Amino acid sequence: MSKNSKKLPYKDHFLYKILNPKTIAIFGANNNLLTTMGSMQLRNIRSGRGLDNNIYPIHPRLEKVQGYKAYKSVLDLPIVPDMAFLILPTNVVPEVMEECGKKGIKNLLITSGGFRESGTNGIELSEKIDEIAKKYDIRFIGPNCLGIYNGWYGYPEKEKAYFNTFWPYVIPQRGNVSIVSQSGTIAAQIFWHAKEMGVKISKSISVGNERNTDMVDCLEYLKNDLQTDVIGIYIEEIKRGKEFIQLAKNVTPNKPIVAIYAGGTEAAIRSIMSHTGSIGGSQKIYDSVFKETGIISTDLILDFLYYLRTLSFAKSYNVFPKGKRVAIVTDSGGSGTMMAKMAEVYGLNVPEFSNSLKAEILELIPPTASANNPIDVTFDVNFINLFYKFPKILMKSGEIDSIIVYGVFDFDEVMDTIEKSGMIIDEKMRSINIMVDNAVLKPIKRLMKKYTVPVFYAGPFPYKYSWFQKFISYDVPIFELWDHPTKCLSILTEYSDYRLMFTNPKQ
Amino acid sequence: MSKNSKKLPYKDHFLYKILNPKTIAIFGANNNLLTTMGSMQLRNIRSGRGLDNNIYPIHPRLEKVQGYKAYKSVLDLPIVPDMAFLILPTNVVPEVMEECGKKGIKNLLITSGGFRESGTNGIELSEKIDEIAKKYDIRFIGPNCLGIYNGWYGYPEKEKAYFNTFWPYVIPQRGNVSIVSQSGTIAAQIFWHAKEMGVKISKSISVGNERNTDMVDCLEYLKNDLQTDVIGIYIEEIKRGKEFIQLAKNVTPNKPIVAIYAGGTEAAIRSIMSHTGSIGGSQKIYDSVFKETGIISTDLILDFLYYLRTLSFAKSYNVFPKGKRVAIVTDSGGSGTMMAKMAEVYGLNVPEFSNSLKAEILELIPPTASANNPIDVTFDVNFINLFYKFPKILMKSGEIDSIIVYGVFDFDEVMDTIEKSGMIIDEKMRSINIMVDNAVLKPIKRLMKKYTVPVFYAGPFPYKYSWFQKFISYDVPIFELWDHPTKCLSILTEYSDYRLMFTNPKQ
Repeated sequence: MSKNSKKLPYKDHFLYKILNPKTIAIFGANNNLLTTMGSMQLRNIRSGRGLDNNIYPIHPRLEKVQGYKAYKSVLDLPIVPDMAFLILPTNVVPEVMEECGKKGIKNLLITSGGFRESGTNGIELSEKIDEIAKKYDIRFIGPNCLGIYNGWYGYPEKEKAYFNTFWPYVIPQRGNVSIVSQSGTIAAQIFWHAKEMGVKISKSISVGNERNTDMVDCLEYLKNDLQTDVIGIYIEEIKRGKEFIQLAKNVTPNKPIVAIYAGGTEAAIRSIMSHTGSIGGSQKIYDSVFKETGIISTDLILDFLYYLRTLSFAKSYNVFPKGKRVAIVTDSGGSGTMMAKMAEVYGLNVPEFSNSLKAEILELIPPTASANNPIDVTFDVNFINLFYKFPKILMKSGEIDSIIVYGVFDFDEVMDTIEKSGMIIDEKMRSINIMVDNAVLKPIKRLMKKYTVPVFYAGPFPYKYSWFQKFISYDVPIFELWDHPTKCLSILTEYSDYRLMFTNPKQ
Repeated sequence: MSKNSKKLPYKDHFLYKILNPKTIAIFGANNNLLTTMGSMQLRNIRSGRGLDNNIYPIHPRLEKVQGYKAYKSVLDLPIVPDMAFLILPTNVVPEVMEECGKKGIKNLLITSGGFRESGTNGIELSEKIDEIAKKYDIRFIGPNCLGIYNGWYGYPEKEKAYFNTFWPYVIPQRGNVSIVSQSGTIAAQIFWHAKEMGVKISKSISVGNERNTDMVDCLEYLKNDLQTDVIGIYIEEIKRGKEFIQLAKNVTPNKPIVAIYAGGTEAAIRSIMSHTGSIGGSQKIYDSVFKETGIISTDLILDFLYYLRTLSFAKSYNVFPKGKRVAIVTDSGGSGTMMAKMAEVYGLNVPEFSNSLKAEILELIPPTASANNPIDVTFDVNFINLFYKFPKILMKSGEIDSIIVYGVFDFDEVMDTIEKSGMIIDEKMRSINIMVDNAVLKPIKRLMKKYTVPVFYAGPFPYKYSWFQKFISYDVPIFELWDHPTKCLSILTEYSDYRLMFTNPKQ
């Protein structure tokens, strides 16, 4: 994010307190971090650096839980916590909830499963917790949820804290993408890959059975949240259809929404029933809802992550392509051809260049190379041309709206290998690592903003390699392999078109 | 591969010598490994451990090239090399080729570009090298190719040598997948990912402009090569259509072929013209060729790698599903639902289980879990159940033909994190790393072979994590994220059906 200072949270909503509790009571954590989910969740809350000593474990027997004094009952607490977090067997939930109500706690997070997704007894229990919530004016998330994550916990008072109640411990970079999910996995287990590929997360909310807080509540919050520019949702069922559609229509012109609808087939609907107890609907209905509301949809988790990352980049730097004309620059004929094909399959154009533009390009490439679109520089070690000069010429020409560059290698690794082969690499060569920062990554970002032309880079290395992580650290879109740049550019171009239909889109 | 000893190469074909030269002359290498492609290629040939001192660089000025005595002309060599490798400016190729012919060299590899793909002068040059080849009875690969890779160089005399004339230095594990590609990138730059995700390569041939050796020649060789079970091809144009179709029909019942056809759109055809000088055709024509010949096709490089890996596994262990009924076992409702949906979208069935099978499953899962298909064990740390017991019960039931298990984590990393949080992990817990070898990976492979039911595992970690690499080292199919298991299972199931149409398929 370029201007963190302006990214204030939206406070005028009950979800603000749930995402930013100053004090918390936790039920179901002990000292066994290996096999007890609640213990892992407490461990992660501790790691977030925000709550310090304001954590109150409730435990029937233990004196201390993970270093904190434990209390036998929530009623014994010396303060009234902002929130209680229940990771408990289903049957004790109503009783504990009642006590929380008596204590005056207004916000709950209920992880426990076994409610309506488990049949008749579960439905009774669900109705019981509804009543208790009503009686004590409680708002809660769940039951049957995995928890929440807030990368901006306590901001701006706290600079680098986060709030993670999930059991996975990995934390992606902080950013402008928020997730609302009817599956805990899509809310939390995507974090390993999000971190690896650079999807920067603001909030992630696992809404579970949505008994009290549903997707519409979350979208209402995120619509106004300055820390959120892009929203990803995972849907098994939409409970308040009319409200959802109306709200989504209001959100998408300014904040793109990417959705996975996991139902629509027989086995999927059966799976949904046993997962959250919802009744999934036909794919057709959902497709028409997505179309009507301008929601971008996919069935694939990798596309979901890529689309979120792409839109996050575009929103952060206000780089929305003005049209469908994509230029492809590559040091490899095969990947160039494959991308040219897929760009057209996905609805983009790969136009031929004017003669004057071709002439300009020809000055920079070897005689065996091609100045057509795709530009194929063939084997050429001048990566400043490939990464920077061609994109610059193309932007200036006004003949294209977006650019894909293929040919990012991990040159550190290349040089390491060369050195191992017996050749001495001098300091000057080693400095290309730093040179690429100043001669490529910083200036290309300026150019992207200036011309509103996105440049997507790709190469044959997995993300783990340092040069790929370097691009990610600069927020310059980088792709391992060459399948996704075209797909993402097509999604971005469509969304750019869509937002222009609304007058004065905020940026 | 289980029985390397039987994997003898096919020798009765000119490509055998090109893939296994005992002596080689190389033009275009020097001592600058950083900017000269030929130098990198020589470095890689040296690394292959097979050729030892039987490498003869030809260089007009240098006395020594990378430690080898250099010769001014091929005519000065003390022996007649099995092969010459030309990485030279286009215009000198005919002259050097003429000298190679005079010397008596019968096999050439010509990397140089600038032939027919560059217009009139290139076409003349191409015809010239045709003539020289005819005159001296030379077979060559290229021009405009990147080279070749043979993971089984000199086998079985040489146990662990390889022959890599590409410039990328990374080497995937040796296996049973061979690639023939009209793009050097698809032949060579996929190696980083192939290594990471466990696509085990036998040979990879970049055929370039196919002036003398084309895809049909390569398929003829690979059809008979015992070191090849699965073939991946990248096509921009098929030159000998009739022969290709006839041969492919013969190959696919025993050795599946996965193809990328990169043409079919306007920009792609233009790109192909400047890449290899071929004229691409309509997608329809290629689709019907693929259908007629039983070739599996895709437009995506990641799918290409996944399909090859899947078929490589199935061929290596003879695990072909007998039908479309897939069971999904997961510790995550969301990924289970998404996979159930996609399995059906891709044409598989996700059947409900019989009551007796459900009863058996219910004994092993928590009360909040689901015994339907998908089986959702919810949060349960008993991964022996998840990874092994459920698959075993499902196989024995006879109610399903293939299985997907979601829930592979890197438990070493999980335990490291727990230890950092202050809990002491005892040796017993640490031993799950070894336990999974003996209690899951070894026995599940036996079961897969016994029941011919493939089990595909998936989890939320990127491949780089050690538990994912552990599964790969056992050749047990593992997937990062959950998009590809269903897709790959559907491809495998379709291929299993296809091969049954032919009597007595070899295994």
